[in-house]
Amino acid sequence: MLDGSALARLAGPGDLETVGQLLHDFNTEFGEPSPSPRVLADRLFKLIEQGTTAILVAGEVPAGLAILRFRAAIWSDGLECYLAELYVVPAHRRQGLGKALMTAAIQEARQRGADIMDIGVDEPDIAARHLYKSLGFTNRAGGAGGPLMYVYEREL
Amino acid sequence: MLDGSALARLAGPGDLETVGQLLHDFNTEFGEPSPSPRVLADRLFKLIEQGTTAILVAGEVPAGLAILRFRAAIWSDGLECYLAELYVVPAHRRQGLGKALMTAAIQEARQRGADIMDIGVDEPDIAARHLYKSLGFTNRAGGAGGPLMYVYEREL
Repeated sequence: MLDGSALARLAGPGDLETVGQLLHDFNTEFGEPSPSPRVLADRLFKLIEQGTTAILVAGEVPAGLAILRFRAAIWSDGLECYLAELYVVPAHRRQGLGKALMTAAIQEARQRGADIMDIGVDEPDIAARHLYKSLGFTNRAGGAGGPLMYVYEREL
Repeated sequence: MLDGSALARLAGPGDLETVGQLLHDFNTEFGEPSPSPRVLADRLFKLIEQGTTAILVAGEVPAGLAILRFRAAIWSDGLECYLAELYVVPAHRRQGLGKALMTAAIQEARQRGADIMDIGVDEPDIAARHLYKSLGFTNRAGGAGGPLMYVYEREL
């Protein structure tokens, strides 16, 4: 796998149409219902304007994306960062884009003053879990020997 | 266990000193370093003022708390709610305060327009996991038969 850290960059307003399409493709690939690419692009534009969301894209024509959400932490004066989405289109997988996106995501989060990053991952998503682990993430509280950390969720 | 839903209420500015102390006790109980109760109270005051955080307390003299964080969702026009903390002091456990807090938390999140609530939970925290499950939360993607959902985390 390439290092590829030069392949990823912060998305600007001109990228949002492509980003909306990528997110729509993401849902479609996994059989999930999705808002239209236009609705997603407009929503992300507002979130970026509010300053609490950053989007990274990878590929000369963007073929992957990462979305970061930021908020003030409770336990420190810094920010918490949540990796809300990570997606690379099927034809561009195994080319280092995911690693490039995550490397850039960590750098962006540090620059904004985040001191922790969280991700929710499904158990069978082995490629993503391997990538996160290779970058120093763990699903065990307190590190290697600790208990597993689960996401619990419900619709309201 | 009591239903206890009448035991929980939204915390106001006058509760924040107690809330700061409870959060400090929470960390101390689990051997974690903690900011002082005063620093925590001041930080939470700012977060509540910003409108993105709600705190619920339970007990005549607050003996438990829940902290909710809100942000705009990407996949809907609504909000996402994250249960950042849930704590009941040891002497007041098994009296329904946790359930009262969670019931009030779900109600508060709905009133604010959230359409989903997420929680991160350690595997051995059986009492909390049982409570969440009893209230309709699941750690399996897509419901009962689905794959487990993990939290991955790293300090930056």
